[in-house]
Amino acid sequence: MFGGVFAAGPAAEETGDRAWLRALLDAEAALARAHARIGLVAPEHAEAITAACDPDRFDAAALGAAATGAGNPVVPLVAELTRAVGGEAARHIHQGATSQDIMDTAAMLVARRAGAAISADAAAAAESLAGLAAAHRDTVMAGRTLLQQALPTTFGLVAATWLTGLEESVAALEHVLAHRAAAQLGGAAGTLASLRGDGLAVVAAFAAETGLAEPDLPWHTERGRIAELAGALARVCGAVAKPAGDIALLAQTEVGEVVEAGGPGTGGSSTLPHKRNPIAAVQAAACARRAPGLAATLLGAQDQQHQRAAGAWHAEWPALSDLLRTTGSAVAWLRTSLERLEVRPEAMRANLAASGGFPLAERVTTDLAGELGRGQAHALVADACAEAARAGRPLEEVLAERLAGRRDRARIAALLDPAGYLGSAAPLIDRALAAHRRRAAERAARPPAATTPRRDEAR
Amino acid sequence: MFGGVFAAGPAAEETGDRAWLRALLDAEAALARAHARIGLVAPEHAEAITAACDPDRFDAAALGAAATGAGNPVVPLVAELTRAVGGEAARHIHQGATSQDIMDTAAMLVARRAGAAISADAAAAAESLAGLAAAHRDTVMAGRTLLQQALPTTFGLVAATWLTGLEESVAALEHVLAHRAAAQLGGAAGTLASLRGDGLAVVAAFAAETGLAEPDLPWHTERGRIAELAGALARVCGAVAKPAGDIALLAQTEVGEVVEAGGPGTGGSSTLPHKRNPIAAVQAAACARRAPGLAATLLGAQDQQHQRAAGAWHAEWPALSDLLRTTGSAVAWLRTSLERLEVRPEAMRANLAASGGFPLAERVTTDLAGELGRGQAHALVADACAEAARAGRPLEEVLAERLAGRRDRARIAALLDPAGYLGSAAPLIDRALAAHRRRAAERAARPPAATTPRRDEAR
Amino acid sequence: MFGGVFAAGPAAEETGDRAWLRALLDAEAALARAHARIGLVAPEHAEAITAACDPDRFDAAALGAAATGAGNPVVPLVAELTRAVGGEAARHIHQGATSQDIMDTAAMLVARRAGAAISADAAAAAESLAGLAAAHRDTVMAGRTLLQQALPTTFGLVAATWLTGLEESVAALEHVLAHRAAAQLGGAAGTLASLRGDGLAVVAAFAAETGLAEPDLPWHTERGRIAELAGALARVCGAVAKPAGDIALLAQTEVGEVVEAGGPGTGGSSTLPHKRNPIAAVQAAACARRAPGLAATLLGAQDQQHQRAAGAWHAEWPALSDLLRTTGSAVAWLRTSLERLEVRPEAMRANLAASGGFPLAERVTTDLAGELGRGQAHALVADACAEAARAGRPLEEVLAERLAGRRDRARIAALLDPAGYLGSAAPLIDRALAAHRRRAAERAARPPAATTPRRDEAR
Amino acid sequence: MFGGVFAAGPAAEETGDRAWLRALLDAEAALARAHARIGLVAPEHAEAITAACDPDRFDAAALGAAATGAGNPVVPLVAELTRAVGGEAARHIHQGATSQDIMDTAAMLVARRAGAAISADAAAAAESLAGLAAAHRDTVMAGRTLLQQALPTTFGLVAATWLTGLEESVAALEHVLAHRAAAQLGGAAGTLASLRGDGLAVVAAFAAETGLAEPDLPWHTERGRIAELAGALARVCGAVAKPAGDIALLAQTEVGEVVEAGGPGTGGSSTLPHKRNPIAAVQAAACARRAPGLAATLLGAQDQQHQRAAGAWHAEWPALSDLLRTTGSAVAWLRTSLERLEVRPEAMRANLAASGGFPLAERVTTDLAGELGRGQAHALVADACAEAARAGRPLEEVLAERLAGRRDRARIAALLDPAGYLGSAAPLIDRALAAHRRRAAERAARPPAATTPRRDEAR
Repeated sequence: MFGGVFAAGPAAEETGDRAWLRALLDAEAALARAHARIGLVAPEHAEAITAACDPDRFDAAALGAAATGAGNPVVPLVAELTRAVGGEAARHIHQGATSQDIMDTAAMLVARRAGAAISADAAAAAESLAGLAAAHRDTVMAGRTLLQQALPTTFGLVAATWLTGLEESVAALEHVLAHRAAAQLGGAAGTLASLRGDGLAVVAAFAAETGLAEPDLPWHTERGRIAELAGALARVCGAVAKPAGDIALLAQTEVGEVVEAGGPGTGGSSTLPHKRNPIAAVQAAACARRAPGLAATLLGAQDQQHQRAAGAWHAEWPALSDLLRTTGSAVAWLRTSLERLEVRPEAMRANLAASGGFPLAERVTTDLAGELGRGQAHALVADACAEAARAGRPLEEVLAERLAGRRDRARIAALLDPAGYLGSAAPLIDRALAAHRRRAAERAARPPAATTPRRDEAR
Repeated sequence: MFGGVFAAGPAAEETGDRAWLRALLDAEAALARAHARIGLVAPEHAEAITAACDPDRFDAAALGAAATGAGNPVVPLVAELTRAVGGEAARHIHQGATSQDIMDTAAMLVARRAGAAISADAAAAAESLAGLAAAHRDTVMAGRTLLQQALPTTFGLVAATWLTGLEESVAALEHVLAHRAAAQLGGAAGTLASLRGDGLAVVAAFAAETGLAEPDLPWHTERGRIAELAGALARVCGAVAKPAGDIALLAQTEVGEVVEAGGPGTGGSSTLPHKRNPIAAVQAAACARRAPGLAATLLGAQDQQHQRAAGAWHAEWPALSDLLRTTGSAVAWLRTSLERLEVRPEAMRANLAASGGFPLAERVTTDLAGELGRGQAHALVADACAEAARAGRPLEEVLAERLAGRRDRARIAALLDPAGYLGSAAPLIDRALAAHRRRAAERAARPPAATTPRRDEAR
Repeated sequence: MFGGVFAAGPAAEETGDRAWLRALLDAEAALARAHARIGLVAPEHAEAITAACDPDRFDAAALGAAATGAGNPVVPLVAELTRAVGGEAARHIHQGATSQDIMDTAAMLVARRAGAAISADAAAAAESLAGLAAAHRDTVMAGRTLLQQALPTTFGLVAATWLTGLEESVAALEHVLAHRAAAQLGGAAGTLASLRGDGLAVVAAFAAETGLAEPDLPWHTERGRIAELAGALARVCGAVAKPAGDIALLAQTEVGEVVEAGGPGTGGSSTLPHKRNPIAAVQAAACARRAPGLAATLLGAQDQQHQRAAGAWHAEWPALSDLLRTTGSAVAWLRTSLERLEVRPEAMRANLAASGGFPLAERVTTDLAGELGRGQAHALVADACAEAARAGRPLEEVLAERLAGRRDRARIAALLDPAGYLGSAAPLIDRALAAHRRRAAERAARPPAATTPRRDEAR
Repeated sequence: MFGGVFAAGPAAEETGDRAWLRALLDAEAALARAHARIGLVAPEHAEAITAACDPDRFDAAALGAAATGAGNPVVPLVAELTRAVGGEAARHIHQGATSQDIMDTAAMLVARRAGAAISADAAAAAESLAGLAAAHRDTVMAGRTLLQQALPTTFGLVAATWLTGLEESVAALEHVLAHRAAAQLGGAAGTLASLRGDGLAVVAAFAAETGLAEPDLPWHTERGRIAELAGALARVCGAVAKPAGDIALLAQTEVGEVVEAGGPGTGGSSTLPHKRNPIAAVQAAACARRAPGLAATLLGAQDQQHQRAAGAWHAEWPALSDLLRTTGSAVAWLRTSLERLEVRPEAMRANLAASGGFPLAERVTTDLAGELGRGQAHALVADACAEAARAGRPLEEVLAERLAGRRDRARIAALLDPAGYLGSAAPLIDRALAAHRRRAAERAARPPAATTPRRDEAR
């Protein structure tokens, strides 16, 4: 019912029941092939198991329901799979593994696949942002602090800041997924006991077959990998919440500096026909808001007892699934919002002009500071501002009086021109765009996820 | 896929897509009847709308998917409903309402219905607990602090404490649901503008038709009701987490004071055939663990802007739904765990005996405190304990030496008998059971939820 | 360093080190008097102990530092107190109690006292809000949804909504403090063992001496009382976050409907002399933001083991203290913001006028719905709005064309007058003010907290 | 009052008021020197400012209190500093900066310094753990899943798992601190406007002077750096919570496999003289429990508006400070617990023996699986376990009957010997220790933090 908002974008289908089922089966199949790879199972048996590991042959809902007895869906899945494979090959299913080995490995496959979808959507959003940053390199607008106009900035710098945040956040997520998403194989107590002397070899082969990192140790109750993933996902949501919130603010009726121009049927209200709601940005913000609570559940679930937790492990499943899905939806909605975004430079100029020069007051202070010291300059200008506000007079006029003998009227007018007081806005944008191009080039050069070097790299 | 664990018990179906669809339709139907009740709509039109508000005629998934344009499922639902009703009657659908009026009212109906399911399961669990408290009024066991044996207590007092916590938590939830679950009707900006002078009358009739409380004001962006619900639900989860965690601890192999005796197929491990896992308690704990994060999302979503929030309202939907469902599942699993619970009084006695009298050390201190003062008595007994532990000697023997002239050996043996040092355990149990009976009688006397007096009572 | 923002208002000093020290000593003194009350200790000894329980005689920082050995500050405090009292009386200190009894009772005293400070500040803020609601009963402004102008409302109704939320939240907090803030006395394992047959009598007397509720059972590891307090406090923070956020939005440079008029030195910026930052509202929002995370810690700390938790209990101390303090500061800053608030009705009117009649579009829809049905009316008006927006023409003009034959120009103008489309705003305000007066009268009639009936009432 | 528990270890003093004051002054001094470095300020003025930036000359509490007007302590600090410096040099204080530039830079300095203290304590704890892992490479104990004995493992592998988790978590924190802890300098709206064309040069010099990374853009409202820090700190707390919880479980009276052997005065109870509480582990767990809520506050505070947030920024200060402090305390208590830890191999053996061979049942299953298939082998062994449990007979005996003809008694006895079923425990330990040595070598080779290459590296 809420999927329209909270299961948007391509990550949604990578986190649903079918995606989990597929990942569980992929893990069982990889395990059989790993045994075959080192000669413990005949290749034809591994092939038979792999062939049977087809999600279309299983019913995720039924497996979920059957999970109540044993507490997880792997037990009924293995029973089903054994029936499906039959014969000699069936004896080699789930060999050396405990349920958690399969669940954890599947969780990491789900995270990798959802993460790839998130990255793709984020890359598209980043392209939009880079385009906005470049196009509005010189579009002057009010910089606002505590929601008050402060100094001029440019919309290009605003977009560049959004861009940098989004790309940095996704890069950090990709780093976690590439280096910390590891296969899990330890057997019932993490010693690989039932594999006798072959344990480490099977683990290495299993990791290779899954494409996941090979961990130094089983991590059944050392959940740092999940915690790092949680932190990275909540960080991405924060990098979405920032522009989404700003877009909603800039689209306010009284501000009108951007419009989210959805086609017919988007952004409408059931009762207010004229509204142009920034609905994609609002939904991005809604998705992002769920992240800190979900991440806290995962961060708090690290206190897992002994060799298998009495509850904390189970609690990870819906929290991780929901966090991946809501992050994917947040990024997808941001992408949509940016695709719909119309920027109104003239409204930006008009809003700045309407505030009567006050945002440039700092510049006058700075101009005077050299001869008066910052404190005295600040006091003089503050007093002029207060007078202008009280009397409803132009600041330029009041300053001309107060600075008579120090600065002439033309100099004051020049000081109050926003386009002349943008500091390093343009070179900062250039820096952000250069970093964007560097990241895009790196991404293009990177091997696809499946062939990523799989050694676990604890930083 | 995770529903076997996290969508257990009768509350699960009251929080699913169909339950939401039903509640949305109930709200639309109640709105039409409310208009009819005060003469604004012809009764036959209200009846036609009510008849069409049948969840079997709508597709929740399709509505959810269609929610992406407008940001909520009410807009497409109203369109569908209008088509289904047709004719003159269709003009009166959704009259005076904004989408949020219907969503919020539906949320409260969902909460009431899920809450009733939670209450029923909790009442059954409470009966089990009251039975345990009564049956084990004199079953001596070790009281444990920081996981160390401290003083003796009784299993009856342990069960009575679990009982009191669970019942108090559910009573608080029922209070919120009875008095704070209110209908929502304010129209697009909360002024009831499109209802002209009839607004307050329609609100009163609407509340009456839904069976929900009538609010003083629309609460579109004043979300205290949701926050109170969130707090109450997370509190219930805490009242489940406590006994669930204790059961898992008491069921430890080395403690063995309780066993969760599920039938075949429950509590088994895919690799460890001998295990008797307290799986229901573990799953109760897992469900409860999700609550603080979900509650935090709802508590944090109170910062809603102006007359309709730009994201925080949407974020409530999945969080509230998940919190109701996980609370219901937590209570259901606790109920199951208690139904399966076998108590082992002999193990309780044996564990206490094995610790060699140390847990009674406090009693000796207290016995001596009158003549030596607490400090000196404490030091003397601590020293004896240390000596007994170091030398591996019985504490009784060491104390007999140290207290020669003060206490004879028989007195020391009596002081170290746990059954003689239970303080007020029995009368405390009686108090808890009396409160339990009082609450059960009140519940029996209470009118069913649907006819609960509906005035909103801000405490 | 951050106390200027986060330890504002009278609740701050009720939650600091000295407040905790005082509460711990009050608990020890009450315990001695409780023993005396039922004849277990000579009155003069109880008096001697009470006299020594003077916070000026102890060093909170030193006690805190000494807590590292035993894990809590009660152990060193009892040692210090025993030295201070000396002689025969000293033997009766801490009788029957465990450290947690004193800590928990002190926590509830701290909560009561901080709660009283919060209530007082909230009552003052509520008076301001009631004044604003009454004064601006007819002050028309834009109602805004998703930050877009939607329909007209009044500032009176906005203030009434803030008022209702704040008062309801504080009433719920007061309810928890009055009925659920209980004394704690159970001894080392919750059985009151060292008090032999006098346990229940001492508990009753102890509760009476502290002024706290008498619990049915010790609640050493059943932490519902703390969880309910956490929920109630985070709810109050939400009731602050709502108006604080709205004030910041209304004070935006481009909106300018309110100004937070602090005197010199408030709301200034180190670099921007002209700014009029709504600094009190911003700080209220900052304080409120800390609540969900702190509440989640407390809600999650209910999973306490056996008869004393191995960590979860300790974790409550800073979280509860910080939550009380930040709630008190949030309320104090809201009070300050409201005291400084200047409302600008002319800006409200102007902003509404500037949006060219669009917010009244719903009214036209409603006016037409009777003859066209809601769907067709909505479509017609939406189309007119789109045309007006596209062509930059007045909506009134476009509608006059489109509705030729259905509505004349004067009717259209009347329909577009915001003052005529306020629905039930005024009677809703009246209802909120009546509830405010009723609550104020109840508060005035209520006995002061110290003599509140002390029976624990599990709802 | 709670500092004994929650402000333990060397990180505590790096997060207190004085540490913040020092960091704020360091930032101001670095800013002056940065101007001097590129010739904008005379060297002697920068020296005068640096000399005045001595925390002993300022009063942190007074500055905090003075922060109420402007909302942060930088405004009063700059005023004080200006008075302290005086003359011409004073004109160059705070040049080009806004308050947030100084606060954020100081926050990063505080984080770096507290992080170094955390790393040092963690390294000491890791040494203890590596020692335990090596010493107990062959110490057999029960592996436990859901708190039930499952299969044998070794204490060495348990310690190696704790070691790996702790080191990986600290490495991730160090990575964030080295690469993402950046200087902040943007001026009032993030454009560096008042520095005219020198902005980028001043930023580079400022970063060099502080030793922090140089950011591509100002990050006033793009808070990924804070979010990453929050995630990394909460992750470290999880890596502490895991061993702390396990130690408390292993130290249970009925388990007794470890003892936390504090000297006199530690781990005692005010009423229970015999207790040997694992108080350091309990306090570590308590400190760690605070992290998810605090991290959630920081992760949720990324939604910062425009160029300066209206509350979310302020809310970071206490949350970050508390999170650094509680993480430092958690690590410090873990270090202490490990220093006190006595391991009891004989208790480990005895507990495993007492469970009568059940934990080896999996091995028998595996041994049979080759000829029977996993399913049938599992069923046969499960049935034998059930019979042994029901009849109270040795599992070895029951299996000898059931497997007559398949396995002889000696073979069954060998299969049930735990020391023979440890799988890859030993090579896994070796792998963990090799990784530990590699990390230690890298740490030794790394330049001290102050000279860390300072370029910001967005991964």
